[in-house]
Amino acid sequence: MNRKAVVLLSGGLDSATTLAIARNQSYQCHALSFNYGQRHSIELKAAKRIAMSLGAHQHKVLEVDLTQIGGSALTDARIAVPETGVTGIPVTYVPARNTIFLAFALAYAETINAFDIFIGVNAVDYSGYPDCRPEYIESFVHTANLATRSGVEGGVYRIHTPLIQLTKAEIIKKGMELGVDYALTVSCYQPDDEGRGCGVCDSCRFRLKGFELAGSADPAQYQ
Amino acid sequence: MNRKAVVLLSGGLDSATTLAIARNQSYQCHALSFNYGQRHSIELKAAKRIAMSLGAHQHKVLEVDLTQIGGSALTDARIAVPETGVTGIPVTYVPARNTIFLAFALAYAETINAFDIFIGVNAVDYSGYPDCRPEYIESFVHTANLATRSGVEGGVYRIHTPLIQLTKAEIIKKGMELGVDYALTVSCYQPDDEGRGCGVCDSCRFRLKGFELAGSADPAQYQ
Repeated sequence: MNRKAVVLLSGGLDSATTLAIARNQSYQCHALSFNYGQRHSIELKAAKRIAMSLGAHQHKVLEVDLTQIGGSALTDARIAVPETGVTGIPVTYVPARNTIFLAFALAYAETINAFDIFIGVNAVDYSGYPDCRPEYIESFVHTANLATRSGVEGGVYRIHTPLIQLTKAEIIKKGMELGVDYALTVSCYQPDDEGRGCGVCDSCRFRLKGFELAGSADPAQYQ
Repeated sequence: MNRKAVVLLSGGLDSATTLAIARNQSYQCHALSFNYGQRHSIELKAAKRIAMSLGAHQHKVLEVDLTQIGGSALTDARIAVPETGVTGIPVTYVPARNTIFLAFALAYAETINAFDIFIGVNAVDYSGYPDCRPEYIESFVHTANLATRSGVEGGVYRIHTPLIQLTKAEIIKKGMELGVDYALTVSCYQPDDEGRGCGVCDSCRFRLKGFELAGSADPAQYQ
């Protein structure tokens, strides 16, 4: 039987590519998404389509309401999404989001007896979020192995970050090789009700630039 | 102004004592509880009473449904709570629970601009849960400082574990010195609707033994 993996799947370009990579490595993929009160919750519909099209074994959507915490443009409607590049970590940073998501991924992995977790973090063409950096991921995995029954009993959790050192253009090329249909993905932080991107938020700008440098047209729709 | 602290408050004996210690150290205490689908959710009523009686500045209850994950006698009604001591880590272990709770505490701390988090974990009179050990806590705090905007910008998160090396009897004596009313606390994993303990689960047994060794009567009610 193929090894199980938990794959964090937002519905965006990076996590779709990550799922394709995990599948290509023959993992039985348990995709995990979060309905966390994100203003772009339409990405969850995209996640569902992507999980199906890329052959995930299962797709689970957890209800984890981060609007109870707030503190980010993505989880507090009163904070606007920036539409031009900003210096430093932007207000779209969600406090401790990846730590919360990875903690749930770890709990889920332990419950289904998986030891591999895939996450599409990237530390090249990104918004400077601290919890996307390699040193953060390395520290989390160390914590994970101390945190769990399975870790104590000799299992070893691994967190796979296949995109972490790739440019956006490299990610797109890799995904196209693996048959990812990027028309299914939603990257925008503030898409309209049809999932069409704004074209101006950080996430849209990194995406559009990536397709341009990859020499491809972005099949996503824009407003 | 007093420094802010986030204090994890379950409603049990240990976390009540921890809150009293944090208050005694003059922190402005933001108590944080979780409605996680625990079978002993009556502990949340206890948490509310304790927060008030010990002078927490605020008490927030987060809805974080861990029954979506399951895998524990505390979050899956089909798994029975053991009523005699067991070898190894018992089925009341909740996969990655403290990692999830600490991740939320970190997010909340970052949002309210606190850098101190108190958690009443104990590695002496405990059930052998891996995420109560000092090495786990040390690793989490390292991860926390890499995870966050505040960490990157030079803030330093601290996780305080004032009970970690105390026996249950020492915890009780400490709490009584600080005026904790243990009649308000609920430790049992399977209390009745009035919050009365079963007297036989791990948590009740550690508690009763602790009061006995502390030379005090347990003011909690039992079925």
